Amino acid sequence: MRDVSIIGIGQTPVGEHWGESLRVLGAEPVLQALQDAHLERVQALFVGNMLSGQLSRQENLGALIADHAGLRGIEAIKVEAACASGAAALRMAFLAVAGGTHDVVVACGVEKMTDAPSAETTRALVAAADAVYEGEHGLSFVALNALLMRRYMFEFGYRHQDFAEFAVNAHRNAVNNPNAMFRRAISAEAFASARMIATPVSLLDSSAIGDGAAAVVLAPTELAGASNSRAVRIVASAVATDSVALHERDDPLYPQAAYASSRRAYEQAGLGPEDIDFFELHDAFTIMAALSLEAAGFAPRGEGARLAMEGEITLQGSIPISTMGGLKARGHPVGASGLYQVVEAVQQLRGQAGANQLPDPRVCMTQSIGGCLANVITHILRRED
Amino acid sequence: MRDVSIIGIGQTPVGEHWGESLRVLGAEPVLQALQDAHLERVQALFVGNMLSGQLSRQENLGALIADHAGLRGIEAIKVEAACASGAAALRMAFLAVAGGTHDVVVACGVEKMTDAPSAETTRALVAAADAVYEGEHGLSFVALNALLMRRYMFEFGYRHQDFAEFAVNAHRNAVNNPNAMFRRAISAEAFASARMIATPVSLLDSSAIGDGAAAVVLAPTELAGASNSRAVRIVASAVATDSVALHERDDPLYPQAAYASSRRAYEQAGLGPEDIDFFELHDAFTIMAALSLEAAGFAPRGEGARLAMEGEITLQGSIPISTMGGLKARGHPVGASGLYQVVEAVQQLRGQAGANQLPDPRVCMTQSIGGCLANVITHILRRED
Repeated sequence: MRDVSIIGIGQTPVGEHWGESLRVLGAEPVLQALQDAHLERVQALFVGNMLSGQLSRQENLGALIADHAGLRGIEAIKVEAACASGAAALRMAFLAVAGGTHDVVVACGVEKMTDAPSAETTRALVAAADAVYEGEHGLSFVALNALLMRRYMFEFGYRHQDFAEFAVNAHRNAVNNPNAMFRRAISAEAFASARMIATPVSLLDSSAIGDGAAAVVLAPTELAGASNSRAVRIVASAVATDSVALHERDDPLYPQAAYASSRRAYEQAGLGPEDIDFFELHDAFTIMAALSLEAAGFAPRGEGARLAMEGEITLQGSIPISTMGGLKARGHPVGASGLYQVVEAVQQLRGQAGANQLPDPRVCMTQSIGGCLANVITHILRRED
Repeated sequence: MRDVSIIGIGQTPVGEHWGESLRVLGAEPVLQALQDAHLERVQALFVGNMLSGQLSRQENLGALIADHAGLRGIEAIKVEAACASGAAALRMAFLAVAGGTHDVVVACGVEKMTDAPSAETTRALVAAADAVYEGEHGLSFVALNALLMRRYMFEFGYRHQDFAEFAVNAHRNAVNNPNAMFRRAISAEAFASARMIATPVSLLDSSAIGDGAAAVVLAPTELAGASNSRAVRIVASAVATDSVALHERDDPLYPQAAYASSRRAYEQAGLGPEDIDFFELHDAFTIMAALSLEAAGFAPRGEGARLAMEGEITLQGSIPISTMGGLKARGHPVGASGLYQVVEAVQQLRGQAGANQLPDPRVCMTQSIGGCLANVITHILRRED
């Protein structure tokens, strides 16, 4: 297999883009990424998306977005893994380039969520859970996270306020990200007084849905060097799954897919948690961030939330997370978030993260979570120079 | 890249499976295919599906079906390309094995359509068209095919009855297929008197939706030989796209994606139309069959329907199509059809096609169409012995 590098990135601001259709939104970062890579054509496009069928009555986004981006004719396919759909598109693009089928491929994640009434969006999102054993019984996706969070608090002795720093950190970092949905800091006091959505998940434990799209261009590393000195290599790409329904797991606080996905990624890269300079994780809810930190080896079981309490997740901490705002404050257009994470990681690794720039980072892990930890997709990116 | 072979196949009968949930339906052919391949585990599962979000409020089918098939933990992702979703799943599995990422991978296509009221299914299927320029104006997917068929008849001088043999042939072949939805022959007279759905598309020009699932196991050819003497090699795997909306094409009767997909497949295989012993095509509508025959090089432009009129598409003809009933009579569970085609092709190539067995076929082309020829996925399979 060939080494693969990211040679172009693109992203739209996350927000309420009522004036832009799905195809316009999706094509924008594709064109940006091509421009960034100094390319006019690619050989294939993989589009990550979860909700366009339910919310926009539009499928076949591969062909649709390829065409609107001026790439009519190329191989183009949609990929779905619930909230990890963007990362799944990157995975497919990686397979195509690493395996030698194509030389230059775009992975794009796109989601348009705010045109629909929020009740409809909530209903659509439950499709990430188990429709028969969870959805049909009235559980929303937030409620599932609430069950997990409550158990975590009980099991490991946390108060709700102990999760504040996840939200505070994300919002602080979003202030300097022009593509973030919420560019304002919040205080721990604001977190404490936020209204509950599904106790103990409050408004500020939750990421906001939004419209957005992000894309990356991949090429073989040996070809990438010539075209772009800032190429970032993908040194690991790993997917693992679990049951979709929470109740079918032996221990819901030991998310097997997240542990397996992380382990596979470390094995591929020949690296360990100590080698990771920052971690773009899937903070759709604060409990997800805590569990992801544990599964990826940055904290022992039950200590993920403590890492946040102790300030280790900030830009100055030992393992910075959500460095451009994360899902929490950059916003969470579900099928696009997995690629926003990667685009932001590349910004950091290239030294293009502006006021949030980490000092000379070399290695980043990104982890995207589909459903309640049913599908976990992990990539490790390394700056090559 | 490594040579890839199909070492296991599985399928459920197509029909109205109201008693079986999506996961049960999807896991069944996966288990059959594993058994056929003499395997208990695989490394990845790619699931082709178009409608589960809209009709069952269930996404993340990769994780769901992997789990229900006893494969919890493996890489598992859903793939969508409208009505070509099953073929797209095969494409992804092919990329993973050919490229060396995995050794043993399952591609499964599954669709559950008959639980929903038919108006809802019709509405969901429009997602294969352009939602903004076609769907919102009230065009059903059948209506789009009617526009194409009417133009084809006008341009090349056909009467409606000239398409009869596509339906007659498919139904004749389905009689001997235990997995077919309609196991009864129809006459040219029945075709002539069938009621119109969207003129000139009649009931018997149209395939029937249904519930169904089919799966294949892939492995590197060099490993496949040891485990299964009946292995069938995938000598080409090609995807091409076009505009999603019909009106955006210079010539709607020259479907560029179908021509490009066929051409790419022939190039990969080093073969031409004269080398293909039979052709499992996407006869969702008779007009699709005619256009696919032309694009794949079996008839000149405007002559695809004539091939049927002249009896060349029967089991005894020069280019047999829909040898086990095709989408028309085996039934068309949209996201699964692309894999039914491949499973049936393997049955023929292995000599397991029963009363419909072709005499010693060696090479088959399968072609699956997403939307109105917006995404066309072609595979060429060759018996290795």
